[in-house]
Amino acid sequence: MLKLFYSPNACSLAPHIALDEAGADYEAVRVDFKNGEQRSERYLAINPKGRVPALVTDRGILTEVPAILGWVAQTYPAAHLKPEGDFFAFSMMQEFNLYIASTVHVALAHLFPAERWADSAEAIANMKAKVPSNLTALLGLIEDRFADGRPWVMGAQYTVADPYLYVMTRWLERDGAGGSAPFPRLVAHRSRVQARPAVQKVLADEGLEPV
Amino acid sequence: MLKLFYSPNACSLAPHIALDEAGADYEAVRVDFKNGEQRSERYLAINPKGRVPALVTDRGILTEVPAILGWVAQTYPAAHLKPEGDFFAFSMMQEFNLYIASTVHVALAHLFPAERWADSAEAIANMKAKVPSNLTALLGLIEDRFADGRPWVMGAQYTVADPYLYVMTRWLERDGAGGSAPFPRLVAHRSRVQARPAVQKVLADEGLEPV
Repeated sequence: MLKLFYSPNACSLAPHIALDEAGADYEAVRVDFKNGEQRSERYLAINPKGRVPALVTDRGILTEVPAILGWVAQTYPAAHLKPEGDFFAFSMMQEFNLYIASTVHVALAHLFPAERWADSAEAIANMKAKVPSNLTALLGLIEDRFADGRPWVMGAQYTVADPYLYVMTRWLERDGAGGSAPFPRLVAHRSRVQARPAVQKVLADEGLEPV
Repeated sequence: MLKLFYSPNACSLAPHIALDEAGADYEAVRVDFKNGEQRSERYLAINPKGRVPALVTDRGILTEVPAILGWVAQTYPAAHLKPEGDFFAFSMMQEFNLYIASTVHVALAHLFPAERWADSAEAIANMKAKVPSNLTALLGLIEDRFADGRPWVMGAQYTVADPYLYVMTRWLERDGAGGSAPFPRLVAHRSRVQARPAVQKVLADEGLEPV
């Protein structure tokens, strides 16, 4: 059985939803960030980076959200969680997931935990102040993507990219992120994701409310 | 023919090397960042994110380094640029490439272009000052990976992860990054990558010196 280490409402929520959508046999194990469990010797033996998610498989431990999402989508083909077609189609989905991981998530992380990149209170305040305008530009490109009326990130088909985008649009409601008002299509997408039974189940499992 | 848009010594250097190692039929097209060409209407039509790399294929345009690297490794199997084995083995390589994209590259980008995440001179100076200690921790994990004497990131086999790591260890020589002295195994890896004919050819193409 797979074992997913997660923290509620962290980016691990995306693979958590993906595993459920895939019908995978998995157990979700909460890592207690409030008490620093991610820095415990026991957890660092699982993921030396001290972060979530980490997916324990019988082949080894996989980390990094897009790597896990891609593996889930490929490993459970009957769930149709990747675009139909060849590896180029798969790579286009991974391109989207990469943009979330290396740009959108990073922009949001300058709100929390901003201490990763600066020490002084003034610098942290300055970084935080810049987050909403950065998000307007970065998420604006994704808002544009939905201008053709597509329901999902990759078009007509729901893929693992959708719960990943959903985590980001959840985070827009955090203090200081600037809210979701500039992104009506992303708000509609968020509602569509949230209407899915697997998503409702996973939110309940993590003790989260819909937004 | 493939067309790779790049800027010299940017992260596009990794897919540039990968395409050459793969024996792909490609043309490398320089984007003139000094004159803001990445923000020109013509380039934004290729990559609306205004960044490099962008790989134009007959199927469409692919961006984001790990997505391109993964696609090259899968598309040119005769070049053996991914670990032998199934999709889990491939995903372990992508996990490494993701760590570079979303964590190591991001840490280095707080040196340049730090203006992405803060406006005030004090904040930018504070962020820059934190880069070397962040890199010590982040690259320390990769240094540890080579403790078993492996020549390449994934073990005995050279993969597309190696030129990607190489770009990061090149950047260690930038002003303010703290240098490569704390990472003797990464320096040895850098030399091994640099000894490869494809790497020497691509460095010359981009007008770069070995480090």
